[in-house]
Amino acid sequence: MTEVDILGLSGSLRAGSMNTALLRAAQKHSPAGVSVTINENLGDVPLYNGDLDTENPPAAVRELREAITRADGLLIATPEYNYSVPGVLKNALDWASRPAASSSLTHKPIAIMGAAPGNFGTVRAQLALRQSFVWTRSRVLTRPEVMVFNCAERFDQAGNLTDEKTIELIRELLTALREQVRG
Amino acid sequence: MTEVDILGLSGSLRAGSMNTALLRAAQKHSPAGVSVTINENLGDVPLYNGDLDTENPPAAVRELREAITRADGLLIATPEYNYSVPGVLKNALDWASRPAASSSLTHKPIAIMGAAPGNFGTVRAQLALRQSFVWTRSRVLTRPEVMVFNCAERFDQAGNLTDEKTIELIRELLTALREQVRG
Amino acid sequence: MTEVDILGLSGSLRAGSMNTALLRAAQKHSPAGVSVTINENLGDVPLYNGDLDTENPPAAVRELREAITRADGLLIATPEYNYSVPGVLKNALDWASRPAASSSLTHKPIAIMGAAPGNFGTVRAQLALRQSFVWTRSRVLTRPEVMVFNCAERFDQAGNLTDEKTIELIRELLTALREQVRG
Amino acid sequence: MTEVDILGLSGSLRAGSMNTALLRAAQKHSPAGVSVTINENLGDVPLYNGDLDTENPPAAVRELREAITRADGLLIATPEYNYSVPGVLKNALDWASRPAASSSLTHKPIAIMGAAPGNFGTVRAQLALRQSFVWTRSRVLTRPEVMVFNCAERFDQAGNLTDEKTIELIRELLTALREQVRG
Repeated sequence: MTEVDILGLSGSLRAGSMNTALLRAAQKHSPAGVSVTINENLGDVPLYNGDLDTENPPAAVRELREAITRADGLLIATPEYNYSVPGVLKNALDWASRPAASSSLTHKPIAIMGAAPGNFGTVRAQLALRQSFVWTRSRVLTRPEVMVFNCAERFDQAGNLTDEKTIELIRELLTALREQVRG
Repeated sequence: MTEVDILGLSGSLRAGSMNTALLRAAQKHSPAGVSVTINENLGDVPLYNGDLDTENPPAAVRELREAITRADGLLIATPEYNYSVPGVLKNALDWASRPAASSSLTHKPIAIMGAAPGNFGTVRAQLALRQSFVWTRSRVLTRPEVMVFNCAERFDQAGNLTDEKTIELIRELLTALREQVRG
Repeated sequence: MTEVDILGLSGSLRAGSMNTALLRAAQKHSPAGVSVTINENLGDVPLYNGDLDTENPPAAVRELREAITRADGLLIATPEYNYSVPGVLKNALDWASRPAASSSLTHKPIAIMGAAPGNFGTVRAQLALRQSFVWTRSRVLTRPEVMVFNCAERFDQAGNLTDEKTIELIRELLTALREQVRG
Repeated sequence: MTEVDILGLSGSLRAGSMNTALLRAAQKHSPAGVSVTINENLGDVPLYNGDLDTENPPAAVRELREAITRADGLLIATPEYNYSVPGVLKNALDWASRPAASSSLTHKPIAIMGAAPGNFGTVRAQLALRQSFVWTRSRVLTRPEVMVFNCAERFDQAGNLTDEKTIELIRELLTALREQVRG
């Protein structure tokens, strides 16, 4: 079978982001038949402006849309800001979701995970994110849910995910995403 | 009584935005004792990055926080993108909400309105926005709700709000916000 | 191909409910290969009580679970009460969702529609309902969304849906559900 | 100052419910000037039916509405069912919220808490509940949030809340509710 290409998007721009670290762990521990590429450029995407949303959009937007379109599926790692999706991530998705009925997100298989330092592991942000993907008609997995609470204790000093249970959950998530892609 | 100073924030950066036009209408038709200033600079706020969220944040962030702190209350006009708050607006609020327990948004009186070209008038975006203000402990009005559906037909060619019913609703919203501020 | 059996659930117990009338319209105008049965017994389901959620649950609960299990998919017509799902419907789903990982709702294909007298056509209730089906791992369609606003004007005196556009949308919804069932 | 009378509502009908136990703890540990009465009768409230929502509603409904009207504020303890508010609780609120603009819930001060056996402590149910109280115009506290995760370890064998931190949080919640009532 052909390799399934997954694009990883992180909702955090911090260099030491644990959500980006979750994506690196997904890349390292991906199951057979799955290849994960991490998009490092959400910070280059300008704030959405309908006046710029033309046939000739900003370069970073065009590249994001093309990368999503090329990918077989998305793996999103989101922190929770103000009980919801970070503006950084929402802004990227606002661009990616256009034009409305035939965007890069339409029918795209998507898996969601998230890490937070506190007890509640981004559960609110993940539900808020799902709400946007109803509009885009994306195919979002319901299981497993990967909600990494108390995340600081699950990484080593170098920022590598070391918690076996979380690694296994991420592998299960990618396996489910692979099956979703292969239909 | 002293004048109540309201800061208007628009979730859209489009020059011809109907949400920004709602704020101009609020400015023009504000009730006695209320003065509305419109922030035109959300487009200058950089994408949130925790590494830059130091004691010396980017200038546009510092100015936004100071403007919110100076204001007696906020009037937010939000479009709905992907069934939720635009990334542009969420990103500004992510910066404004920091530091967590003593931010410019803490206990701030807030009124919400929104305009959309379709039938559902930003009701989903407005609810999503309220969710974030639970975390920030802001004091968000529950009434009147100003959900301007089929918005295109309510403005003239020059972008002035002409719909009497909507103008009256906005006046009621500002009156309720004034009372909330005056306690 | 074999007939696809759809079970219709209404969130309203009113005799003249427009949501129940939507289900009758779905039954009458169902596309080829789809048969719709309407469950009339949600009013008999007792309020959920974990102490009664045993291997021998109340009869109405057992019957509801069996009817859902037998059906190839669900068609839910929900009013909006207090910006969310009616307690009547949520209560039925609370029973149907048990036991957690192997309930009648697990992986069940589900289509949602709703009618409301006002402008916003149950959009908030429908999103709230989708949130519950993340937990149950149900397969909820994203399109078409059937949000019947200003519903009173779309029925005749006898309670028959007469609005051609809505009838067509319901047919499209059932067609999409049929395809989801057939995989 | 006069005593502040708080009515406690539990979203669970189980005899051994930890949410009802939270209310008993609130009653036992209430701060000065606060008296908590627990409503034990949500199980008697019939499923909402608009045809019965007349000037002469079912007795249990009339009693619930009168009890809420008499109370200075509500303290709600909610479990989380299917990522949202239990149907039992939503059903009671559907009745209590009628008639729409002048119901027992209009402008009522409300405090929310919740207990769950798992990691996420009813955070989704609590947010869902807040959404309904936007419609009813209730005055819902934003802090403290009382989300009792891993709740089983916080009670003794007899069902008494023994976790000092949770007891203190509940006292703070009732203190904040008292201040909200006193204005």
